[in-house]
Amino acid sequence: MPEPVVLVLDADPSPRLGRLTGRARVLRTGAAVVAARVADAVVLVVWDFAAVAVREAWPGEGPRPRWVHAASAGVDRLLCPELAASDTVLTNARGIFERSIAEYVAGLVLAFAKDLPTTLALQREHRWHHREGQQVAGSRAVVVGAGPIGREITRLLHGLGVQVALVGRTARRTIHGIEDLGPLAARADWVISAVPLTPSTYGMFDTRFFGVLQPSARFINVGRGASVVEADLVEALNRRWLAGSALDVFREEPLGEESPLWDVPGLLVSPQLSGDTAGWRDRLGEQFVTMYERWADGHPLPNVVDKERGYVPSTDNSEDPDGT
Amino acid sequence: MPEPVVLVLDADPSPRLGRLTGRARVLRTGAAVVAARVADAVVLVVWDFAAVAVREAWPGEGPRPRWVHAASAGVDRLLCPELAASDTVLTNARGIFERSIAEYVAGLVLAFAKDLPTTLALQREHRWHHREGQQVAGSRAVVVGAGPIGREITRLLHGLGVQVALVGRTARRTIHGIEDLGPLAARADWVISAVPLTPSTYGMFDTRFFGVLQPSARFINVGRGASVVEADLVEALNRRWLAGSALDVFREEPLGEESPLWDVPGLLVSPQLSGDTAGWRDRLGEQFVTMYERWADGHPLPNVVDKERGYVPSTDNSEDPDGT
Repeated sequence: MPEPVVLVLDADPSPRLGRLTGRARVLRTGAAVVAARVADAVVLVVWDFAAVAVREAWPGEGPRPRWVHAASAGVDRLLCPELAASDTVLTNARGIFERSIAEYVAGLVLAFAKDLPTTLALQREHRWHHREGQQVAGSRAVVVGAGPIGREITRLLHGLGVQVALVGRTARRTIHGIEDLGPLAARADWVISAVPLTPSTYGMFDTRFFGVLQPSARFINVGRGASVVEADLVEALNRRWLAGSALDVFREEPLGEESPLWDVPGLLVSPQLSGDTAGWRDRLGEQFVTMYERWADGHPLPNVVDKERGYVPSTDNSEDPDGT
Repeated sequence: MPEPVVLVLDADPSPRLGRLTGRARVLRTGAAVVAARVADAVVLVVWDFAAVAVREAWPGEGPRPRWVHAASAGVDRLLCPELAASDTVLTNARGIFERSIAEYVAGLVLAFAKDLPTTLALQREHRWHHREGQQVAGSRAVVVGAGPIGREITRLLHGLGVQVALVGRTARRTIHGIEDLGPLAARADWVISAVPLTPSTYGMFDTRFFGVLQPSARFINVGRGASVVEADLVEALNRRWLAGSALDVFREEPLGEESPLWDVPGLLVSPQLSGDTAGWRDRLGEQFVTMYERWADGHPLPNVVDKERGYVPSTDNSEDPDGT
């Protein structure tokens, strides 16, 4: 029996998949030619940045991969209706990014509280200007999105003494339902979004939402860009409805040089790097290889995405999913 | 009996001491005239920034305060030999700054790990440039100075998953002695100083010290400026002996506009603000009022400085002091 074809879409630099030698035929391909090759693949591995190409190349009724693995937390970019309707299994990289993203959020919270951007700006001007920071311990945060990333953010902020409310789609045990988001956000110092992109989260952070925040609040998005109506956020910042914001994800990436978002006072812009700490590509590669070995040996796959919901349902024995 | 005179040196804006009304006569004074008034004071309260004036105004053998309270953690700026030799009790503001300073250090560690200064610089240039950060969990830190500030830094970094070694003057239980500093620093990702300024810490961070660090290490000083030989640090940074540094304290403060320190690549300069979070002056005022009430009622004072050592010895029933 020939080795199964594992088609890897657009990873540069490539993660090491050497352990698959002898168990799979690994082919690497770019977004431009994925359509010509996808029908031959038994497994398709997709890097997040290239995921849109899969939507366009998906073979529909024809021969198609039995398994698509997204080397990312979010799967919205590749989850087209045809893939959702097919019997192809979709998995994600749950477990790889949580800690790094949570650290990134904690770093932003502390940087805002200590006014680090102003310190750096004053240093450039050679100006010694003493200011008072804020104490993070005792402040209040709302984390929106009760998946593994939101839960890790909650855990890390809690360790810094922050009072954290975690909001998911539906209330369960220690998690608030989405109906509590408004009242919780209205008294929060920090609102942090780690929601997956689904029809119900698309554009959820809009003028109506920003209007309830305290003027001292900061909004941080490490989930998906399209959950935020960017023009509404800019207007809210300009009107001082909130004190600051940090976006690591955007509706269109990369952000063009001409984007007005670069220059909004109080808005910190970063190029979707919150989860990417040294060695992340190798960790993604190792994770896939381990998953492949299990799969090839006939074991069930972990991290299987519920293609209707658009994320991996919670494994905590709750009946409720853990995305929002 | 007339109310004791409490002389308050140079606090602007002044902390509220209203609760002392009827128990003390509170006089406020500037550094220029403290010499003329200090002999009449029973209690002298000194803000850190003005402390040097006390050294110059100290009355020597003449009438002098029975109690001097430093509204700061460090007392080096006011602890002259005559004060040390006198029977005047010296106290400090132990308990006020620890948490804020520890948060500030955690914020710097995360900002360095996530390369936040570069993100801000690229944003100014409208440049989308993805980079890999570092994961803080699992990294190694050495905290030098095992007083309450160093211990709080240790606690907070430990909560972020950092492996922290705490170094004091002498080894005891979980604290390393100063003889371990070199070997520990040689494999640390983060070296953080929270030492008081004493003859044994003056200039302790010098070329010899920086020479043992890993090229990826960062050095953070939230203790006292004169523990660092600034020219040696600048040279070490320029030679890439370490990857970065943040100084919140300096040999001479405020740092002049012409100081070369503002422009050293990899060096983050802040104006001694790590401990100063919203409400800090009021917290200092409340602390002093509470101490005064105890003292006036005949109870022993807390936070008494060992004037030979230059810091408040540990109260953890150890025989060893907790400064370095």
